[in-house]
Amino acid sequence: MKKEKIVLGIDIGGTNTKIGFVSKNGKVYFENHFSTESKKPFENFISKLTLEIQNLTYKSDNQFELIGIGIGAPNANFYSGQMEYPPNFKWGDFVPIVQRVKQVYNVPIRFTNDANAAAVGQLLYGIGHSMKNFVVLTLGTGLGSGIIINGRLLVGEHGVAGEIGHINVNPNGRMCNCGLQGCLETYASVTGIRRTVFELISEMKEDSSLKNVSFNEMTGETIANAAIDGDKIAEKAFEFTGEILGTKIADVVAVLDPEAIILTGGLVKAGKILLDPIKTHMEKNLFSAYKGKIKILTSKMTSSDAVIGAASMVWNNQQDKFN
Amino acid sequence: MKKEKIVLGIDIGGTNTKIGFVSKNGKVYFENHFSTESKKPFENFISKLTLEIQNLTYKSDNQFELIGIGIGAPNANFYSGQMEYPPNFKWGDFVPIVQRVKQVYNVPIRFTNDANAAAVGQLLYGIGHSMKNFVVLTLGTGLGSGIIINGRLLVGEHGVAGEIGHINVNPNGRMCNCGLQGCLETYASVTGIRRTVFELISEMKEDSSLKNVSFNEMTGETIANAAIDGDKIAEKAFEFTGEILGTKIADVVAVLDPEAIILTGGLVKAGKILLDPIKTHMEKNLFSAYKGKIKILTSKMTSSDAVIGAASMVWNNQQDKFN
Repeated sequence: MKKEKIVLGIDIGGTNTKIGFVSKNGKVYFENHFSTESKKPFENFISKLTLEIQNLTYKSDNQFELIGIGIGAPNANFYSGQMEYPPNFKWGDFVPIVQRVKQVYNVPIRFTNDANAAAVGQLLYGIGHSMKNFVVLTLGTGLGSGIIINGRLLVGEHGVAGEIGHINVNPNGRMCNCGLQGCLETYASVTGIRRTVFELISEMKEDSSLKNVSFNEMTGETIANAAIDGDKIAEKAFEFTGEILGTKIADVVAVLDPEAIILTGGLVKAGKILLDPIKTHMEKNLFSAYKGKIKILTSKMTSSDAVIGAASMVWNNQQDKFN
Repeated sequence: MKKEKIVLGIDIGGTNTKIGFVSKNGKVYFENHFSTESKKPFENFISKLTLEIQNLTYKSDNQFELIGIGIGAPNANFYSGQMEYPPNFKWGDFVPIVQRVKQVYNVPIRFTNDANAAAVGQLLYGIGHSMKNFVVLTLGTGLGSGIIINGRLLVGEHGVAGEIGHINVNPNGRMCNCGLQGCLETYASVTGIRRTVFELISEMKEDSSLKNVSFNEMTGETIANAAIDGDKIAEKAFEFTGEILGTKIADVVAVLDPEAIILTGGLVKAGKILLDPIKTHMEKNLFSAYKGKIKILTSKMTSSDAVIGAASMVWNNQQDKFN
């Protein structure tokens, strides 16, 4: 009997790494996850990864034919196959992920950052399914982005296109982990809105339930719930975040002319209180040729989405040099 | 004898329209130009255009086989074949250029704005020749842009990608002809730097030869010559322009990851006094993954370049629906 073709999806995160077999139609089989241990040596990770893949293969009882591996990772370079200067990993400045995985599994490997993988996942299996030109923004701890043009991932000349989180909002603005100042992700992300809440607490005199919560304890959900309860500081934080993000989305539109911007990640759970100001301020700042034409859409991320997104890179047959 | 294949290039400008036959290797034959008369009815233009093309054909003594027409025009929509809301033309809100030309010459027609045409021209015959990913910025009366990705013009979902002149520098900034406020072209263009000079004259106390020149008489060359002579206001105007443009180029890089930014148009004649601050401020604002990797190049525009650029759209075989 002919075996079903399958792609292994690997999503390397700062805390956990997820793996799973993904079929051509986006179904996940035998998913698993393990602690990345990003502060331990890289070889420790490779050993664990290899073992976990073996376990997965064992569980699948040899029913699949592995045709490729898709890997999503922070600071991934599509062309070099390396994580480059990952700030939250103690694996060195250049981490040869693709090379090391290839030593164990000699199949075609696609490698990109998690937001790019999410964009390809949306293209193949998500709300980007019927579209050819769109941008995915992941509003989580940071702001990641993946850009689809004519149904293909925009990779860029050096393999690192789509760092929309690092376009500048204000040259005198907030310090960013990347070393620049005033980057969009210091405002439009879960971390960004927490910083905004703390700025507003320092400026405003209104009472707020958020004054009882420490910075490290404050989540996007805490702020969203406060805003829904009519908390003035929380409301203003969402208005401010939406204004900045909407304005900068208008700039991205003036470069790319996409059909839609797809928002995903933790902050999107806030819903209307975030989306309304984004839409208002994007529309207000759009150049006339784009007005009324650009959709703002949202997509819920399931825990499997990162693995599906990584694997979708192979199913979408992205060109690379690791074949 | 077999006739040489030729493309007719048409560059419609607010003042003059240029036409010429362009060969596959970018050589121009029988160029001509005539007054656009953009304030007279559109049919007047079409009659003149048709007549001028007939003259050109007559002059060429029937030696060519016309295989297509490339047209560059302000506010051109690649897909609709119309100029849409052209502010400096009294030809209506939607001007069906392609449809009307097609009635006379039933060959494939490519239609786009002049900056996009310039980008394709650079790709085929200019310094973009050896590159696959770059952005052309034309710094003239306004700031036009054309984006090449993987060796193809970025057209966008609605046919109007590449309006980098209308990304936002400052929400409380200068009023733009487009109706928005603080657009990049109100700073980084010949008109923009003139506005900067007038702002600086109002603020600074230094003597300056520019205080003897009216706004309408001041050209980019006037300001450049003053700067070369050590005029403080002119020097500061170039520094300010270069800082804003360099910073915004860094944002564009964070979206596209290009190999180079190619600057062209009148303001580029200023040379080093403009380019140095652009390079400095771009580099300073680049996200780490791009630092040291992005080239700033310049290209002189000859009077034939617009016609070649328009024709190059056909030679580059851009997809459209007018075949």
